[in-house]
Amino acid sequence: MTAEIIDGKAFAAGIREKVAAEVARVKAAGVTPGLAVILVGEDPASEVYVGHKHKATVAAGMESFEYRLPADVPEAELFALIDRLNADPAVHGILCQFPVPDHLDERRTVARIDPAKDVDGLSVVNAGLLATGGDALTPCTPLGCLMLLRDRLGDMSGLSAVVIGRSNLFGKPMAQLLLRENCTVTMAHSRTRDLDQVCRGADILVAAVGRAQMVKGDWVKPGATVIDVGITRVPHPDLPGKTRLVGDVDFAEAVEVAGAITPVPGGVGPMTIACLLANTLTACCRTHGLPAPEGLTA
Amino acid sequence: MTAEIIDGKAFAAGIREKVAAEVARVKAAGVTPGLAVILVGEDPASEVYVGHKHKATVAAGMESFEYRLPADVPEAELFALIDRLNADPAVHGILCQFPVPDHLDERRTVARIDPAKDVDGLSVVNAGLLATGGDALTPCTPLGCLMLLRDRLGDMSGLSAVVIGRSNLFGKPMAQLLLRENCTVTMAHSRTRDLDQVCRGADILVAAVGRAQMVKGDWVKPGATVIDVGITRVPHPDLPGKTRLVGDVDFAEAVEVAGAITPVPGGVGPMTIACLLANTLTACCRTHGLPAPEGLTA
Repeated sequence: MTAEIIDGKAFAAGIREKVAAEVARVKAAGVTPGLAVILVGEDPASEVYVGHKHKATVAAGMESFEYRLPADVPEAELFALIDRLNADPAVHGILCQFPVPDHLDERRTVARIDPAKDVDGLSVVNAGLLATGGDALTPCTPLGCLMLLRDRLGDMSGLSAVVIGRSNLFGKPMAQLLLRENCTVTMAHSRTRDLDQVCRGADILVAAVGRAQMVKGDWVKPGATVIDVGITRVPHPDLPGKTRLVGDVDFAEAVEVAGAITPVPGGVGPMTIACLLANTLTACCRTHGLPAPEGLTA
Repeated sequence: MTAEIIDGKAFAAGIREKVAAEVARVKAAGVTPGLAVILVGEDPASEVYVGHKHKATVAAGMESFEYRLPADVPEAELFALIDRLNADPAVHGILCQFPVPDHLDERRTVARIDPAKDVDGLSVVNAGLLATGGDALTPCTPLGCLMLLRDRLGDMSGLSAVVIGRSNLFGKPMAQLLLRENCTVTMAHSRTRDLDQVCRGADILVAAVGRAQMVKGDWVKPGATVIDVGITRVPHPDLPGKTRLVGDVDFAEAVEVAGAITPVPGGVGPMTIACLLANTLTACCRTHGLPAPEGLTA
């Protein structure tokens, strides 16, 4: 058996088109969704991400606002900017690109953002809404995985899902989303005993630990849907001095066992920005009392 | 094998003594913890609960404030009272006894309470803090179960825990607490397939579904710790016309297999009020910048 390879790039392109179509709809109602991105300092990787986000936002027909602050910006100044954006009716989503320099605190920064504009879904309020069944803004990567799973599986009710990794950014919200889909959800992590056996029980296996190729083929239940959230650069096996990107799953092995699997790269990765756009649109719709876009929320 | 029967009544009495000792300590520092309970209408069961809470609060050396509102109280009037209590420095914990009459909304009511005084731990903010590893006020019944488990098992790291039931009040926070203890946590529920098999994998089995004696002896892993949160009144098997209370676990069967088990009644039940007192003390200590009481928090 060889698994279907889930084309996250194509699927994400579809989501971005869908967002663009919905943006056109709300614009016709007189509102233009707007996303503000704050970049503190000059981390080159962050510069690249912020650039991608800007381009995607504009491509979807939304307003993109960029704010670049010096690496030594005092917290008070960052917070003053966030306060202004919280109050700005043209801004529906706000995100501060992490990591921020050491003198700033990520938790405090996220907490400063109006939860209704917290399109990264990282605030305590959005985590609480997600945990209690409210209308949360959901972190982008787990939301993207949910969309891929829904597309592949439809009704997930009663399926056994195992999430490896319990970060606030991914593992915990992913578990909540799968629980909402009526999966039986197991949260596994570094302390889990017999992890291979736990994984073998999973109809849906989601790996997000950041350990290259940790999940072996014989950890995968035949026919399972495998979502690989990890991304690690490792030495290339055939090209000396070169590197390549791999996930948390040993793809070559797992593809022989799984029913479907996301590759790395080109699987989950492209969904993140697509879901950031979706969340900005959702935040805009909720603020203006417009119906939330179908298929773009949890 | 016959399980150790966990005496929740005795353990809860110990917690209440511990709270009383800590209350004496904070009083010596010049602060008296205070709990305000709001009762809307005249539900007889609620009257009994509120009475118990009042007595326990006073017995622990804390201030008890009771507010009784008529069944038809307008929401605005209830909220005005909550606002006053939020602002009152003598009040460290506020709870509104549920259920409230139909014209009132539980979610909105809880949301009105200052999260720092939400000693039932039911607000979105406290759920979010619990989910993200912050200093939450934790719902009382799961906190009580956690205390019983810590007392019995000590370090739970790597143990497999299954929670049946996914309510906001119990199952979801219980799962979060067990995850914090580094258990591998499975959230099971009405849609779970092969629930008996899922349960048989559990070193810690927590049942909270409200279905009398649903969990059979052969669902229990030999030596497991079983926490029974259900409580249902059923016809007495031997005394016609009489009733008795049973849990979600078939106690007579499970006691032969488990390593330890909570009875119903006398297991988890008595822990709830003890944890309400603990939470009020915790809220008071946090408000006043005093060290949080050891062993009384998550």
